[in-house]
Amino acid sequence: MHTHDLIRELREANGSKIVLVVADGLGGLPLTPGGKTELETAVRPNLDAAARDGVVGLSVPVLPGITPGSGPGHLGLFGYDPLEHRIGRGILEALGIGFAVGPNDVCIRGNFCTLDAEGKISDRRAGRPTTERCIEVVNKLRSITVPGVEVFVEPVKEHRFVLVFRGDGLGDAVNDTDPQAVGVPPLAPNGNDAASRRTAEVVSQFIAKASAVLKTESPTNGLTLRGFAKQPKIATMQELYGLRSAAIAVYPMYKGLARLVGMDVLDAGQTLNDQVERLAKVWGDYDFFFLHYKYTDSTGEDGNFPAKVQMIEKFDAAIPAMRALKPDVFIVTGDHSTPSKMKSHSWHPVPTLLVADTCRTDAVTEFSESSCLFGGLGRFEAKHLMLLAMAHAGRLGKYGA
Amino acid sequence: MHTHDLIRELREANGSKIVLVVADGLGGLPLTPGGKTELETAVRPNLDAAARDGVVGLSVPVLPGITPGSGPGHLGLFGYDPLEHRIGRGILEALGIGFAVGPNDVCIRGNFCTLDAEGKISDRRAGRPTTERCIEVVNKLRSITVPGVEVFVEPVKEHRFVLVFRGDGLGDAVNDTDPQAVGVPPLAPNGNDAASRRTAEVVSQFIAKASAVLKTESPTNGLTLRGFAKQPKIATMQELYGLRSAAIAVYPMYKGLARLVGMDVLDAGQTLNDQVERLAKVWGDYDFFFLHYKYTDSTGEDGNFPAKVQMIEKFDAAIPAMRALKPDVFIVTGDHSTPSKMKSHSWHPVPTLLVADTCRTDAVTEFSESSCLFGGLGRFEAKHLMLLAMAHAGRLGKYGA
Repeated sequence: MHTHDLIRELREANGSKIVLVVADGLGGLPLTPGGKTELETAVRPNLDAAARDGVVGLSVPVLPGITPGSGPGHLGLFGYDPLEHRIGRGILEALGIGFAVGPNDVCIRGNFCTLDAEGKISDRRAGRPTTERCIEVVNKLRSITVPGVEVFVEPVKEHRFVLVFRGDGLGDAVNDTDPQAVGVPPLAPNGNDAASRRTAEVVSQFIAKASAVLKTESPTNGLTLRGFAKQPKIATMQELYGLRSAAIAVYPMYKGLARLVGMDVLDAGQTLNDQVERLAKVWGDYDFFFLHYKYTDSTGEDGNFPAKVQMIEKFDAAIPAMRALKPDVFIVTGDHSTPSKMKSHSWHPVPTLLVADTCRTDAVTEFSESSCLFGGLGRFEAKHLMLLAMAHAGRLGKYGA
Repeated sequence: MHTHDLIRELREANGSKIVLVVADGLGGLPLTPGGKTELETAVRPNLDAAARDGVVGLSVPVLPGITPGSGPGHLGLFGYDPLEHRIGRGILEALGIGFAVGPNDVCIRGNFCTLDAEGKISDRRAGRPTTERCIEVVNKLRSITVPGVEVFVEPVKEHRFVLVFRGDGLGDAVNDTDPQAVGVPPLAPNGNDAASRRTAEVVSQFIAKASAVLKTESPTNGLTLRGFAKQPKIATMQELYGLRSAAIAVYPMYKGLARLVGMDVLDAGQTLNDQVERLAKVWGDYDFFFLHYKYTDSTGEDGNFPAKVQMIEKFDAAIPAMRALKPDVFIVTGDHSTPSKMKSHSWHPVPTLLVADTCRTDAVTEFSESSCLFGGLGRFEAKHLMLLAMAHAGRLGKYGA
């Protein structure tokens, strides 16, 4: 029996409120063996207090050793098996720039490249144009039309752009045109089924017209496409859990991921304080709140240990205002670890705390990687966190008599 | 590969003996955060000694956050995936009153209700009749016959009764006739496949005759039916593990669950001492013994913390007599937690201990929720406990060369 069928069968509505706070890339590593992680270094009285009041543990985002991107990392936290529900690269790219993806859209990541006189790729990133230049070239491509579909071209950064085809009956089983090599021409798009052949045909037309436009734009005189993807078919949080769900996130990617599972995406302002204010204002309107904090990840990606420590301390300071709303279930976790030492996402389990009246409190008095190892939640798969949230919220009935 | 196929392939017979003692609803919660659970409060020298001699851990009955009923809780402990093998409500109701369910039986939970002059339900529980009255009305229904099948009507309690149709080719995919509402008449039974349409036809005949009998019995002048269920097709413990298995349980529900997996259900007397005496008497006749203790659950359900503590202490006192029989594998666990604080079953992991010569003993010296967190068995799914039991009994050969 699929866990989601079980949830649909057992779920109950009771007016309780769940707050899931995701500090992106929360988990870290010590810079030297035996040292302290970013979280352990931070002064974090409020996270420690929550750890004392509740129960802690370590979340495994996907599987031991598997480093997730933001997509799988968040899907897991929302209770969707990240190995079962895949979000294609094109979709993530589109979500990342805040493009409102629809059910009939095929989203594609595009790269400008430089083609030589024979049409072979000489630079896969077209000499890394400035983002201003990217916008300029994209604007020229926007004049292209393809009969029967809507075409959207959106700049991302440097040589990167997003291409979206909107229309009935478009499939996404189309190969990348990027050969991932120089000295060869871009590949032709081919569809793997009838609907995807239709997409390939549309894409071919677009590429032909784009080639004409770009001809005189050297070094950005060519393009490659990859990650053809439609939105995955996924039950909404409302359908699955019966929760009226709201996302309070500042960055487009996380708003997009929340929209994908049917959350209402609220105006979150620009700062954590804005987000907490929004949370308080809409408290009566929803059952489930997803609050996303970005800077624990971005400072980790930068390899800036002290900055990540500082961002954790800033995050810590916002905790009391959230708890003051008295959520029935209050959860703090991350979608993955982002150790400054690695300057990247990692697979390491993520410190997690849960506060609720029905907690079997543990002896842990601090919120850190090393203390969570001894917490009552143990080590669990991220996809099971929502089961615990629902249970502690009194929203899951008994299975079997 | 299904775990059960693996077991069948690897299992070996060696005359060793396994005792599985289930203290129903064993796990608990502190009444106040940071306090002690029922088990932690109890004086339990013998459980602690067993914890010291063996290895402990925490059993997750189904999945994190999922609260099991007795059926799934015990199936898991017997090594059957509770999400794969479902026991219908009608079956559980029949097992609960000690009805000897057979393979051709469709079991149904019945409720007496009150119908108004138009045949609409005005009280779904018929004013909660006394159990004596329930027995009286059930006795009148026992005169009803339906050609081609045997009919059994058994009183349960107040407005509840069990209805069983025994006959070849009866299916159980029949809708509840209980509309779960007042002001509407009971629904007609409809079958979802040929065999279930046959059942629906039989049930319709029964209802017509019952209506005539009940007409003058207001307020118990109607009935609704739900949870149509046949016995699940399930391998016996003998077939699966090659274990001659015996159940020593006092309450009908647990005898019934044991019968479902093919255990011999022995006369267990009325008390824990009776049960232990029975265990000693039949020691030579079986390989596997399931001993069930109810009162840790019932006191938890009552929300009576001190009574649950007392029942744990009583349970503790019976441990030495069981261990004196020198089982090769001695296990104490629960089918789920029943915290007095919640007055209900819960999803919290269950303290578990296992004593055998092959234990990798841990540093844990007490048997409690908090100490089991640090035990050598870690946190495991209940359905894997029998694998450990078989392994420690020397009854599982090597997988692969």
